Amino acid sequence: MRRVKDLADRLRVYLVTDDRPDHEEVQDIVARALLGGVTCVQLRRKSEDGGPMLRLALALRELTRAHGALFIVNDRLDIALLSEADGVHVGQTDLPARLVKSRFPGLIVGVSARSVDEAVRAEADGADYLGVGSVYPTSTKGDAVLTGLETLQATRRAVHIPIVGIGGITVERAAEVVAAGAEGVAVVSAIMSASDPQAAAEALARQTAR
Amino acid sequence: MRRVKDLADRLRVYLVTDDRPDHEEVQDIVARALLGGVTCVQLRRKSEDGGPMLRLALALRELTRAHGALFIVNDRLDIALLSEADGVHVGQTDLPARLVKSRFPGLIVGVSARSVDEAVRAEADGADYLGVGSVYPTSTKGDAVLTGLETLQATRRAVHIPIVGIGGITVERAAEVVAAGAEGVAVVSAIMSASDPQAAAEALARQTAR
Ligand code: NI
Repeated sequence: MRRVKDLADRLRVYLVTDDRPDHEEVQDIVARALLGGVTCVQLRRKSEDGGPMLRLALALRELTRAHGALFIVNDRLDIALLSEADGVHVGQTDLPARLVKSRFPGLIVGVSARSVDEAVRAEADGADYLGVGSVYPTSTKGDAVLTGLETLQATRRAVHIPIVGIGGITVERAAEVVAAGAEGVAVVSAIMSASDPQAAAEALARQTAR
Repeated sequence: MRRVKDLADRLRVYLVTDDRPDHEEVQDIVARALLGGVTCVQLRRKSEDGGPMLRLALALRELTRAHGALFIVNDRLDIALLSEADGVHVGQTDLPARLVKSRFPGLIVGVSARSVDEAVRAEADGADYLGVGSVYPTSTKGDAVLTGLETLQATRRAVHIPIVGIGGITVERAAEVVAAGAEGVAVVSAIMSASDPQAAAEALARQTAR
């Protein structure tokens, strides 16, 4: 299907924001990363009230729109709707993908999967893409399960929707994640903590070019 | 207006759930409180993932519907929408009432106000009712501002929408909260921690009868 191919292209360099309190810093890094070629930005704020999170979402929606990038909100479907995000990303204990997709079919729904089973179930629930990982050890998510490249390869054979590898991915590792079957790479610190976020995004775009 | 009068009646005995982990316990207390005459139930879960919170919301939606009571969700507009709640309640740092109301006009929107200024602004933003308090000292919300009965009286003169007093309200204090101008009383522990939640709800209904 054409649409799936398009989505896969737009998930190629996928930036997930971190929890730093300074909104201007987040916006500045995202703006530079978009210049470098980030194709999708996910707003993830695990411990922020709805008011400030919505303000940040509206700012990132404007930035991503200006660059033709996707904008996805983690977990908070309400903030995704109010900020006119392209989609929402849910973990295994967040809102059920099937329900979200059935009520808001126009939204892209991404699901975090840590095993082939979870991936197959997410696809059956109507997920549009998967975040599979943690591919490598990571300090960003304390509760992350290490899946390795093998789970990524097995998941690629088991499902038809695009897969984004996530967890500990660096510029140096990006190519092998794509070689293992991922359509895109999702990173937090490889861009958020880079001394030059634009250069980091450019390098990730090069490493994942098809 | 008739509609406001109806809403005021339905806010008379307003139960806010607590954060106890056991969902069955919450459902059991809410069921007994509804038998006792609770007219509105607000689901407030400050530290729960979307998946389990939605399951609890769906259970409370069924219970409140069976008793003709209102069902309101605190902060999580998405869970309010997915559980077909009657409304959403937002604090001063949650989603902005004006935006929620403009996008989802069919939802009842309640706003927490700690001063006449916040109350007047919330009414201008389209709030359908106010939660004013904390009327008395309370241990349920650590960050609560003590407003006293005076703020309640001043707010009653300043706005036209129904007011629910909240914060440290007991059966013994309910009548003076209503006498100060509140259309309803909101309680957490007076029902959630009562040895007999049904009897506590009955007593609150008697004390607030018009
Ligand atoms: Ni196809």
